[in-house]
Amino acid sequence: MESFIFDPIEHLKKIALPDGGKIILLVLDGLGGLKIDGKTALEMANTPNMDKLARKYETGLFIPVFPGITPGSGPGHLSLFGYNSLKYDIGRGILETLGLDMEVKIGDITARGNFCTMEGDVVKDRRAGRIPTEENQKLISFISQKIQSIEDVRIILKSGKEHRFAVIFRGEGLGPATDTDPHRDGERLKTSSSSGKDGDKTASIINKFTNKVRKILADNKPANGILLRGVSLMPEIPQFPEIYKLKAGAIATYPMYRGIAKLVGMEIIPTGTTNRDVIDTLIHHFSDYDYFYVHIKKTDSYGEDGDIEKKKSVIEEIDGYIPEISSLKPDVLAITGDHSTPAKMKGHSWHPVPFLLVSNVTREGYAEAFSEKECLKGSLGIFPGIYITSLLLAHSGRLDKYGA
Amino acid sequence: MESFIFDPIEHLKKIALPDGGKIILLVLDGLGGLKIDGKTALEMANTPNMDKLARKYETGLFIPVFPGITPGSGPGHLSLFGYNSLKYDIGRGILETLGLDMEVKIGDITARGNFCTMEGDVVKDRRAGRIPTEENQKLISFISQKIQSIEDVRIILKSGKEHRFAVIFRGEGLGPATDTDPHRDGERLKTSSSSGKDGDKTASIINKFTNKVRKILADNKPANGILLRGVSLMPEIPQFPEIYKLKAGAIATYPMYRGIAKLVGMEIIPTGTTNRDVIDTLIHHFSDYDYFYVHIKKTDSYGEDGDIEKKKSVIEEIDGYIPEISSLKPDVLAITGDHSTPAKMKGHSWHPVPFLLVSNVTREGYAEAFSEKECLKGSLGIFPGIYITSLLLAHSGRLDKYGA
Repeated sequence: MESFIFDPIEHLKKIALPDGGKIILLVLDGLGGLKIDGKTALEMANTPNMDKLARKYETGLFIPVFPGITPGSGPGHLSLFGYNSLKYDIGRGILETLGLDMEVKIGDITARGNFCTMEGDVVKDRRAGRIPTEENQKLISFISQKIQSIEDVRIILKSGKEHRFAVIFRGEGLGPATDTDPHRDGERLKTSSSSGKDGDKTASIINKFTNKVRKILADNKPANGILLRGVSLMPEIPQFPEIYKLKAGAIATYPMYRGIAKLVGMEIIPTGTTNRDVIDTLIHHFSDYDYFYVHIKKTDSYGEDGDIEKKKSVIEEIDGYIPEISSLKPDVLAITGDHSTPAKMKGHSWHPVPFLLVSNVTREGYAEAFSEKECLKGSLGIFPGIYITSLLLAHSGRLDKYGA
Repeated sequence: MESFIFDPIEHLKKIALPDGGKIILLVLDGLGGLKIDGKTALEMANTPNMDKLARKYETGLFIPVFPGITPGSGPGHLSLFGYNSLKYDIGRGILETLGLDMEVKIGDITARGNFCTMEGDVVKDRRAGRIPTEENQKLISFISQKIQSIEDVRIILKSGKEHRFAVIFRGEGLGPATDTDPHRDGERLKTSSSSGKDGDKTASIINKFTNKVRKILADNKPANGILLRGVSLMPEIPQFPEIYKLKAGAIATYPMYRGIAKLVGMEIIPTGTTNRDVIDTLIHHFSDYDYFYVHIKKTDSYGEDGDIEKKKSVIEEIDGYIPEISSLKPDVLAITGDHSTPAKMKGHSWHPVPFLLVSNVTREGYAEAFSEKECLKGSLGIFPGIYITSLLLAHSGRLDKYGA
């Protein structure tokens, strides 16, 4: 049906050229902010390199999903990669499995799980007293040995922190089904039921799995049960490299972002754990790919912590790498975020995200620096995030003329 | 296919939270203008309070329906309330009945009526010489006694001014049908016919009603007939408080605006006839609702009169109330119009409308005053009116994160 922003993929696919320049999309997660004591983190940061680019090249601000809608990391990144994030819904279970570095395939059913304490069918403690991670790992290992599949459906488990784990149900003909989490202590565990086409089989497997685990853990304390939430079907999603006829590589220190990139068909380029590692990986592999998605996590983490000083420091660290990135001579370099994470709000927000586009065929820069305020003066204006991909392709000579 | 603006209701409904802050939407009807002698009414007006807010908080300009489209009051307000006004069409008959303070229900057929002078089947004078309102009221009272229903359809009538009245046909299975107004004197009265699903019954009732009235008025002069125009079906419209999980109250001195608010499910908070009454009502009921739609009519009326001085004075009067409104400490205060009514044009226009958004999580104000020109510098940019509702909700903490 209708979309906030029309889905351009079918149109772009027809005019995508197999050759063209190299693109780097540098994402400082949660980059946008709000002022604390008169300045945003980006305004506080001393960023001579980005400012110089902002003065010379094109700037603007993008709206990730819809005005007022605060995106999670999934929708935020889908927008960056040119997908209509209201159309392609990546569920919470899927992001959880990706965050634990599990491999998700189209048609998989995924869920977030909790170990919990039960009394009969009532969930007494949804977190089983937050059991230690080591206890969790022992339990998952034990359950994984006991239950490898139910009927023709494979069960793949992985521990998270404390009481949390993730599960993948992999088999033919699995549709969407509901959670078993009652969401409140003292209520009965829910029975999963179908919530769409082919959901009956999924619900049945989820309920059988839950009962088998309860039997296995019957004498265990305090974790003698499990509950599942964010039960999600991995939808079919058009593959980025196929749509745009390019070789796309993703460099990210956090599993969830590698996972999202993998979902859209990008190759994961192994890297280390620091920002310096990320930049070194980009430099080392620059000849191997046409398009690089480069992800910096800590801007978001410190925004979530409400620590504007540390967010500022990460921005400054990345600014220091800009000369090295520029010296690779990419045809297009974009510097932006996936959403705003104002330290003032200690969380993601809906506010438009500063965007900087460097290529030798941009309009001029009318901004005087790279900031929320200055990007407003830029020639890209305020625009939906789904425009980013076609802009990157165009500036790298990768889109043919449309019509004669 | 796709529309200028996507309908976000289904998406927002899923992430609307049942709790959050208080919102005031202060609508100065027809606020936007054009310059006369170098200044718009808003620029002429001395508005120290609004200017101060514009400097500190967020501004922009919104397009009510589509660039170049001049909205009536119906579409203008639907946009303000977050509806795609190209999708939800509130017909002229419905607005007429609302303007006369009649209550319209989903499935009603409404129309504007004229008393007219007929010679045989020819309409000699479409306005029956503009009969006095008192004569009109006598005729309507008489007809209402004689015709209370036709078949299973109730007929509800109300006098307007001079020759004008409104009618509601209320019954099961009524669809859209055509007008009987020939639109020119000296032409034959038209026969209503179906113009959509279930329209036959409506057309038949309209034609029977018209003939019955003509019989009743056969010997009356000069009004011996009626014609109906703007025949409209009241469509099903998602209810604002249900979509957004909040208690919404409307304060307006004019019936039409109370009517539009009621159509979308808001409660009407009784008030007096002056702007001071409106503000007092807001103050008095501030603890009773989550969302207030507050309507000021006279800015539009004076714009329609071409009286820029008086339009300016109304704006100044309202500016004087801003400190009282601010002292209520709403979490979100938006000040705007429903469309532009430039005194220069003596009517509604399509020009974008100044918009001011006050909350403690806006980006900063880059405008130096509240005006058409200064709002252009604001961080909201120029945006479709349908974004307003999700922005108000977001700034009051009433929208959950979308996706993980």
